[in-house]
Amino acid sequence: MPEDVENQEVEETSPETGELEALRNENEELIDTLQRLQADFDNYRKRAARDQESLVARAGERIVKELLPILDDLERALEAADSHEEAKLEDGVKLVHRQLEQLLEKEGLAPVETDGRFDPHVHEALLTQPSDADEGSVIEVLQKGYRLGDRVLRPARVVVAGPKEESPSGNPP
Amino acid sequence: MPEDVENQEVEETSPETGELEALRNENEELIDTLQRLQADFDNYRKRAARDQESLVARAGERIVKELLPILDDLERALEAADSHEEAKLEDGVKLVHRQLEQLLEKEGLAPVETDGRFDPHVHEALLTQPSDADEGSVIEVLQKGYRLGDRVLRPARVVVAGPKEESPSGNPP
Repeated sequence: MPEDVENQEVEETSPETGELEALRNENEELIDTLQRLQADFDNYRKRAARDQESLVARAGERIVKELLPILDDLERALEAADSHEEAKLEDGVKLVHRQLEQLLEKEGLAPVETDGRFDPHVHEALLTQPSDADEGSVIEVLQKGYRLGDRVLRPARVVVAGPKEESPSGNPP
Repeated sequence: MPEDVENQEVEETSPETGELEALRNENEELIDTLQRLQADFDNYRKRAARDQESLVARAGERIVKELLPILDDLERALEAADSHEEAKLEDGVKLVHRQLEQLLEKEGLAPVETDGRFDPHVHEALLTQPSDADEGSVIEVLQKGYRLGDRVLRPARVVVAGPKEESPSGNPP
């Protein structure tokens, strides 16, 4: 039996020589594994860099492609303007607006709420004005704000109500 | 001298024992290196997956952010339409169109050329019409085509000139 022959050969050598042999083999295998792992790692790194480039390119490409029909409709609206078809121009612009809103909504865009109290996390106060409204409430939106997911992409620029104005002809004491 | 003492100690052991010791140390170091490399690789893989997600999100976010002023101007144009300021509406739409074109150009979008011969790589022939133009030339563009970098994102949909029409009152032979 070949196995027995092998065992005999091992036993013929000293225990130290056997261990040396085993350690040498183990070392070789470890070096081999290490080299293969290093090569795999290098390849993975290269592939990841390539993947990232193409992912970014494709993410941009997807939105660009979705913007093409909007560009088409905008051009059609401008053609209507050229031929003085005002109603058609207006309808076209409304359509473009709706499409762009839908595209952005699909990307996760949502308008910042402006009903209620001024919130410095999502609003930017450009002015404080005396008002009949409750002090600290938003009374006018100068530029809409937007969130993307849970991040504020642009705060809403608003006018905030100051202290209530005293009536010029105040009640008599 | 400490070095000499060390050397003496090594010489006291048999050459095999010295080699065994060296191999055992080498083995331990290899296993250690291997484990660290494996851990680095695992961490790298996890980080790469996270990075890719955020890269894709950011690529979309960048374009979404650039679309906000266009959405603003579109809304301003619609307000002009509401108050029947036709000239302002038209100017607004022209501005929006220019902005959208510039944004898309910056993303690498370029219109497909349609001057000249029909090219199946970038054109889609919807019709062939008898024409005075050279046979096989593009005589009308029904929908603009676009390239993104070196790829055709959308072919131009065109009408192609068929064989020249024979003059109804042909020259006498």
